[in-house]
Amino acid sequence: MKKYVIGIDYGTLSARAVLADAENGSILPHTPTFPYPHGVMTELAGKPLPSEFALQHPKDYTDALEFLIPELVKKNGVDPKDIVGIGIDFTACTIFPLDENREPLCFDKRFEAEPLAYSMLWKHRGADKYTHLFEDAAKKLYPYLLDMTGGRIAGEFFFPKLYEVYKEAPEVYKNASVFINAGDHVASVLTGNKVHSVAFATIKEHYDNFGGKGYPDRSYFAEIDGGFADVLTKVDTDLTPVGSCAGRLTAAWAERLGLCEGTAVAVPIIDAHGAISAAGIADKRATLAIGTSAVVAVMSSEYNNVKGILAQGYEATAEGLHSLEAGVRAMGDLYDWFVKNCVSAEYERRAKECGMNIHAYLRSLAAKKKIGESRLIALDWFNGNRSVLPNDKLSGMILGLTLATRPEDIYRALIESTVFEIKRVCDNYTSSGIEINSVVATGGIPLKDPMLMQILSDTMNMPVSCLESSEATALGSAVYGATAAGLYTTVAEASQKMKQPIAKTYYPVAENVRAYAELYAEYCRLYDYFASGENAVMERLHDLKI
Amino acid sequence: MKKYVIGIDYGTLSARAVLADAENGSILPHTPTFPYPHGVMTELAGKPLPSEFALQHPKDYTDALEFLIPELVKKNGVDPKDIVGIGIDFTACTIFPLDENREPLCFDKRFEAEPLAYSMLWKHRGADKYTHLFEDAAKKLYPYLLDMTGGRIAGEFFFPKLYEVYKEAPEVYKNASVFINAGDHVASVLTGNKVHSVAFATIKEHYDNFGGKGYPDRSYFAEIDGGFADVLTKVDTDLTPVGSCAGRLTAAWAERLGLCEGTAVAVPIIDAHGAISAAGIADKRATLAIGTSAVVAVMSSEYNNVKGILAQGYEATAEGLHSLEAGVRAMGDLYDWFVKNCVSAEYERRAKECGMNIHAYLRSLAAKKKIGESRLIALDWFNGNRSVLPNDKLSGMILGLTLATRPEDIYRALIESTVFEIKRVCDNYTSSGIEINSVVATGGIPLKDPMLMQILSDTMNMPVSCLESSEATALGSAVYGATAAGLYTTVAEASQKMKQPIAKTYYPVAENVRAYAELYAEYCRLYDYFASGENAVMERLHDLKI
Repeated sequence: MKKYVIGIDYGTLSARAVLADAENGSILPHTPTFPYPHGVMTELAGKPLPSEFALQHPKDYTDALEFLIPELVKKNGVDPKDIVGIGIDFTACTIFPLDENREPLCFDKRFEAEPLAYSMLWKHRGADKYTHLFEDAAKKLYPYLLDMTGGRIAGEFFFPKLYEVYKEAPEVYKNASVFINAGDHVASVLTGNKVHSVAFATIKEHYDNFGGKGYPDRSYFAEIDGGFADVLTKVDTDLTPVGSCAGRLTAAWAERLGLCEGTAVAVPIIDAHGAISAAGIADKRATLAIGTSAVVAVMSSEYNNVKGILAQGYEATAEGLHSLEAGVRAMGDLYDWFVKNCVSAEYERRAKECGMNIHAYLRSLAAKKKIGESRLIALDWFNGNRSVLPNDKLSGMILGLTLATRPEDIYRALIESTVFEIKRVCDNYTSSGIEINSVVATGGIPLKDPMLMQILSDTMNMPVSCLESSEATALGSAVYGATAAGLYTTVAEASQKMKQPIAKTYYPVAENVRAYAELYAEYCRLYDYFASGENAVMERLHDLKI
Repeated sequence: MKKYVIGIDYGTLSARAVLADAENGSILPHTPTFPYPHGVMTELAGKPLPSEFALQHPKDYTDALEFLIPELVKKNGVDPKDIVGIGIDFTACTIFPLDENREPLCFDKRFEAEPLAYSMLWKHRGADKYTHLFEDAAKKLYPYLLDMTGGRIAGEFFFPKLYEVYKEAPEVYKNASVFINAGDHVASVLTGNKVHSVAFATIKEHYDNFGGKGYPDRSYFAEIDGGFADVLTKVDTDLTPVGSCAGRLTAAWAERLGLCEGTAVAVPIIDAHGAISAAGIADKRATLAIGTSAVVAVMSSEYNNVKGILAQGYEATAEGLHSLEAGVRAMGDLYDWFVKNCVSAEYERRAKECGMNIHAYLRSLAAKKKIGESRLIALDWFNGNRSVLPNDKLSGMILGLTLATRPEDIYRALIESTVFEIKRVCDNYTSSGIEINSVVATGGIPLKDPMLMQILSDTMNMPVSCLESSEATALGSAVYGATAAGLYTTVAEASQKMKQPIAKTYYPVAENVRAYAELYAEYCRLYDYFASGENAVMERLHDLKI
């Protein structure tokens, strides 16, 4: 009798789900998607939100379950009895406050007009202005905290976000019994248990899972602000390890979803790490999770102090391994910005005539160009730089423009800039002692854009593969569902059995490698000039008082 | 009895004509335009032309006369007997070869498929690769030649263009009895006389009209190339001074145009200089002729050695004065590039809904922004830099881009970049001893774009005026028609009587001046970084072997 597991991938704009064969990871054909009805909220109660805010509505998360799972079971024609586990991955750090009944605080009428009672998405940047307090306190009391996070503490992390609530919405802070990761919340709802995944805690919550120090103590938070000293009373500090079972599906949710009561629910993981497991956990490989932004993740059996990455966490992905995570702040987002803002009506008309969407049409034109033919170089910091600087005040640049420049030239230059950023991130890993000799790229874009994949292989000068399914991340979650159900003893074992086949491997072409080495050198020269402070024009423009 | 004069302005894409009251310069209402049927040619005999080529068909020039003048006379209802003079301005250096009968060589069947038998437009850049020969020879033999042309010799000048023909189309060179400026050709055709204006000769043909050396001697051309030593045998070396009469309208052309035989035809001038006369010849004023590109012209009663300008010529515009000319390579062209390539269908739709053209719509959005609000800085070198570097290998740059950047932000940043370039050109004049305390901007754009005019005034920190008519250049030609007809004794006198009224003067606003000083400082920092060789990335990209 075949056994199946569900994997649910909660992304930035939508959730999607797969049903996979627990033995070999093959994904059943119907893979529904649920775009969040509230999307990324830009206003609340008729008022526009500040541009640095990125909020979601927690109701969308459970609505996603109620849509996706019945769809998945029915359309794939699988008997619910054969579904033995559910895995969940979620963006991180995406968090919100719960009331004393562990209901989202924003469901309470008193707080429904209060932005910070809603879910603060990973890319919510309202706390950026407070990070220096965390960094200063870490430098003074606990420098190891900075080693865990590449030398900086980002505004998108857990405690800076909590501090933002403490400072700017004190009533929310006071009435919050706990702040929870959205992924943990979903697992808690399904099982009725308190769940707090080590994945979230060790990667973005200063939780030392390797040295055994756990959370920083009260003195750290007191150093930041006396009133913030007891913040740990608003955190579930009993952690649940990755690869374990968070609990069993309750009768009520089993009925609601059309599954069997008692189905195993895995401890949730971070979305980017789902991609690693879907590709098969392996050494010396960079796994790219490419979506609106991109994560460049590597696994290491030894601890390395790597500057400039976003974070690293022990056993955040699999037993006995360190997960290191660096990122490119805008990738799909950047290409989308370009087609939404900078492509003429004429091009849209021509794309329609060719029966292509505008991305495909631009790619078809850009792919015909020779390397360097556009004579453009771009810096991809349209959403700041996440790794390896990091610096949120940096911005994008396009250089080499002429009256003969066409949209496809710029489109290709933007793609190249994001690839160069990935190369720069990987160079940083290798110079910190982590060897990389291959790349696996996951997500929809690698399957749609062979040009990007070839550029990546030529720039990295190494083989770059993409997986057969664009739903690799959700399949990665399913790996944890299978482990939680007891079908495997370790995540690594489940991952090896269930990993996705490689759709295609791109190999570097010697003459392209030489051409891109030249362009990458130009990119790095500009990168260093603008990022090193030699000309801090981007920061000055960012800080201009208008 | 009122007397009238005709002014014909031959631009890059079209010719236009005005009929003006010779006493006060007031322009009659009907001002016809003749777009050149062949435009700027991109192919010849079915073959595409190289991208650095910019050719015109000489037939378009005389066809323009046959269309414009009858239109002008008829529609304005003026008796041809009251029309006493014709003035002509033309882009420069725009030249072509004539056969032994002084017919354009390209009219000869033997040469109709030969690109270099056609008219090489001012911006034809096929000779760029030969300019070092001219510069080296000048350095060695006649350094004063470089002082006349801002320290460099441009590929768009007369002799480099002739050398291009000599090298690349030897049969054309051999069969050319003379190479003529298009403006001189028009005046020659109308009068039956040989015409060679001092304006063309002194500004772009190394003709020293101040020191009295005239053309460089044979040894200069022999130094460049032995076979090119006798090039002056293919030039009309008897020059006709600006402000004088080139001759009288022939009977045949009088009949063809519906004018009276014997009407005075002025010695032609350079188009940008028409704008100076239309604004009223004055000291300490920069005159901007803004079109696809822009010219920044100043008049000086004393000789100044100014580096980085395109050229200067004695009595090129008016008696006893030096005309200095610097330029911005892309202005209207740049804004057009942007709307053609980078504005979305959505914006085009909204513009249509508002009943605006896309330029007007973008301006309406951009004008609402505060200074610096877009946080963008651009370098305007989309067509290279003409002054004050000059460097054709430089290219455009946009910096400060984010996912929140909208088309109107970029549009405004491009406008600001061209204004900053004008400021840089004027700073160069003043640091070379030429005082500037006001600006007059001519052309259609200043009348259409009050935002640009205010930015110009704020950036320059001085009053900036625009003239009532967008046909100022053609009116400037008419000034010379009136002088040629003997109605005035000097160009300066005619110009003072016939100058166009000021439509509006923009005054600097103190807080804007401060804000733009900050942005201009950023512009200059980037300008110097990329232009000084500190990071010659633009040149390297330009020279990439593809």
